[in-house]
Amino acid sequence: MKVASIGLGLIGGSFALALQEHVLEVEIWGIDHNQAHIEAALARKIIHHKGSIDDLKNFDLIVLSIPVDAASALLPEILHQAEKECLVIDMGSTKNDVCEAVKNHVKRNQFLALHPIAGTEFSGPKAAFASLFNNAMMIVCEAEKTDENLKKKAYQILQKLKMQLHFMSPKEHDKHLAYVSHLSHVSSFMLGKTVLDLEKNEGEIFNLAGSGFESTVRLAKSNSKTWIAIFKQNKAEVLTSLKEYQQNLKEFEKLLETNQFSELENLLNSTSRIKEILAKK
Amino acid sequence: MKVASIGLGLIGGSFALALQEHVLEVEIWGIDHNQAHIEAALARKIIHHKGSIDDLKNFDLIVLSIPVDAASALLPEILHQAEKECLVIDMGSTKNDVCEAVKNHVKRNQFLALHPIAGTEFSGPKAAFASLFNNAMMIVCEAEKTDENLKKKAYQILQKLKMQLHFMSPKEHDKHLAYVSHLSHVSSFMLGKTVLDLEKNEGEIFNLAGSGFESTVRLAKSNSKTWIAIFKQNKAEVLTSLKEYQQNLKEFEKLLETNQFSELENLLNSTSRIKEILAKK
Repeated sequence: MKVASIGLGLIGGSFALALQEHVLEVEIWGIDHNQAHIEAALARKIIHHKGSIDDLKNFDLIVLSIPVDAASALLPEILHQAEKECLVIDMGSTKNDVCEAVKNHVKRNQFLALHPIAGTEFSGPKAAFASLFNNAMMIVCEAEKTDENLKKKAYQILQKLKMQLHFMSPKEHDKHLAYVSHLSHVSSFMLGKTVLDLEKNEGEIFNLAGSGFESTVRLAKSNSKTWIAIFKQNKAEVLTSLKEYQQNLKEFEKLLETNQFSELENLLNSTSRIKEILAKK
Repeated sequence: MKVASIGLGLIGGSFALALQEHVLEVEIWGIDHNQAHIEAALARKIIHHKGSIDDLKNFDLIVLSIPVDAASALLPEILHQAEKECLVIDMGSTKNDVCEAVKNHVKRNQFLALHPIAGTEFSGPKAAFASLFNNAMMIVCEAEKTDENLKKKAYQILQKLKMQLHFMSPKEHDKHLAYVSHLSHVSSFMLGKTVLDLEKNEGEIFNLAGSGFESTVRLAKSNSKTWIAIFKQNKAEVLTSLKEYQQNLKEFEKLLETNQFSELENLLNSTSRIKEILAKK
């Protein structure tokens, strides 16, 4: 199987490694506007050859793992170049814009919109590893719009990668992900900023930070370009979730400020189901 | 060495286990108003005997690891009971109130105010483990008010436990901890609540949550009684840090709402030092 992997970051790089581990006879051409990524991906044998975005004929599979704004912009032309038997998949963290971008495309049925629920706070081909997708969930959007044979091929590959398929609409996807992923990133970035602001006056404050702080700001290490694109594409849902989060913080503040401690305890206890939920994961 | 361990939760239980591992000939009496904690601590050999809060004569060391409101309330009487050679330490997450509570106490010099920067989101004696404090930081407040010999004894024990001492005033402690610990807990609890609220209408949203969400809400699993007491005692500093955090979230919201994406990217990039800081930890 000849594969073009466009985008050689954590996701694209890990997917290329996983393909090599689980799918027989895979040959991968890597494409990335960052030359250092190409070199690192060749050195780590994530890819076999350097490819070109202007030469996408003769592939069986084209994998798009680039920032979501670039994916929406480039997908129509990529799909245009894809030959009849070629499947094009995208792995971005938002799904509505990319599906909109090709909804009337003459080759719409060669595209499958995916989002793996897997990642780390690290980025680039050096952060890639083959087992990233093992047992992870893969969200599939608008599956009904993809050609049956190409879809079958995709599912066979994802099954070999031990991924669990979960089907939903792009709108539903973007709403839910705003709450369980994008909001966590906003929270982490701004928590990091709040403490960095204090550090300007208070010196070595980070010496005092324990594992709890580390856990809540871990996502602030994420790539800002990747995340700006996600916040931009999912603006409405991110803003809705952020407003609700701020209302809850305001409620906490009000109860503490006015010494309503038993109500504050009720508020904390109302989140206790999180224990069971995380225990199951 | 005869030790009374008042409070047999994660901190008190782990400290008792660490004493047994690192200090020779330790005999521990456990005190807890929760009878199940006593039983679990006896079963796990965290303590050797059940003790009583009304019988604190004849100990070399009394360790207080209970919610911070209870610690401030009980410490004067505990110190009153302590014999001349007995050292009393407290391990609470706030330090100003507990130091205020005994500032004019006739036995003030037998007390040492401590706070280990160590913990997990779990609680109770079943969550205790001997290595919790290995290489962790131990904050020492108002060390100058403690008797030289008793202080030397304390430092020898903490050294055997491989802890790093860090000295600061109670006010400085409470301010810094508001930012690097207490605020992270507020953020986690309220992030958990925001997503739970959505779940009421949207069903299986948590299926979609990845490790990022898990990381940011992990602290929402913490014991609410413990945390209400901390928020109450450190109200002013927690409110200040929370207001600053909310201002940063509001700034994020405003930039996204008005499509100021390059400013938003600058805002995210302003937190990039978090990477270096966490890498060193």
